[in-house]
Amino acid sequence: MEEQPALQIIGILHGDIANCEDAPKNYSESERVGNLEIFSDYEDALDGIVSGQTIVVLFWLHQAVRNILKVHPRGDESKKLCGVFATRSPARPNPIAISELKVLAIQGNRLEVSGLDILDGTPIIDIKKKIG
Amino acid sequence: MEEQPALQIIGILHGDIANCEDAPKNYSESERVGNLEIFSDYEDALDGIVSGQTIVVLFWLHQAVRNILKVHPRGDESKKLCGVFATRSPARPNPIAISELKVLAIQGNRLEVSGLDILDGTPIIDIKKKIG
Repeated sequence: MEEQPALQIIGILHGDIANCEDAPKNYSESERVGNLEIFSDYEDALDGIVSGQTIVVLFWLHQAVRNILKVHPRGDESKKLCGVFATRSPARPNPIAISELKVLAIQGNRLEVSGLDILDGTPIIDIKKKIG
Repeated sequence: MEEQPALQIIGILHGDIANCEDAPKNYSESERVGNLEIFSDYEDALDGIVSGQTIVVLFWLHQAVRNILKVHPRGDESKKLCGVFATRSPARPNPIAISELKVLAIQGNRLEVSGLDILDGTPIIDIKKKIG
């Protein structure tokens, strides 16, 4: 096994969230709309995704801090410090975010989605079917 | 942004699933028990996780194939080929699995969990609080 496996960026998010202060705390609190642009090398892997379904999307939070192990939950300093693995904080050793997004439309390699809590320009690393 | 961000392995799974044929298709179909060993460098990030809660665990499926874009869903060749992003197949450009696991007990850097659908010895790359 590789010591530090390398990720392939499969696409990029186009949205209207420009900074962290403007981002919903998570997808369950968001109706923000945007587009997932999947790079042409990976477009065939979208086959079978349909409008109206909910997909699970993994993002690589390239601006997140990776060397912090404790945070104040939801950035609220009145709450006591807590391990990042007990939270959804973007700060963590591997800053991967999971969002459940509704597919509004599909045009070739672009998926229009709602539920975004992620910054414009964030790399996409995976898409999965939602279980259940 | 790095072209190919490198992952940090934060721990390893100890379980009783030795090969793919023996693995449940996903966590929602499993009651298998095992242990998440988190490496000591990351142990502080577990603070706040409690017995009885459900956590979201990301695994790096180090044995998975990364260059296949279409699969037969659930390995059933009677089903037509489908893009990997429309499935939960381990085969995908970045073979990251998401499992929702119940914490049975915590002993230092080890979490005993149930719901496993992942091979013994698989690297762990992240743990998150479950939303909702």
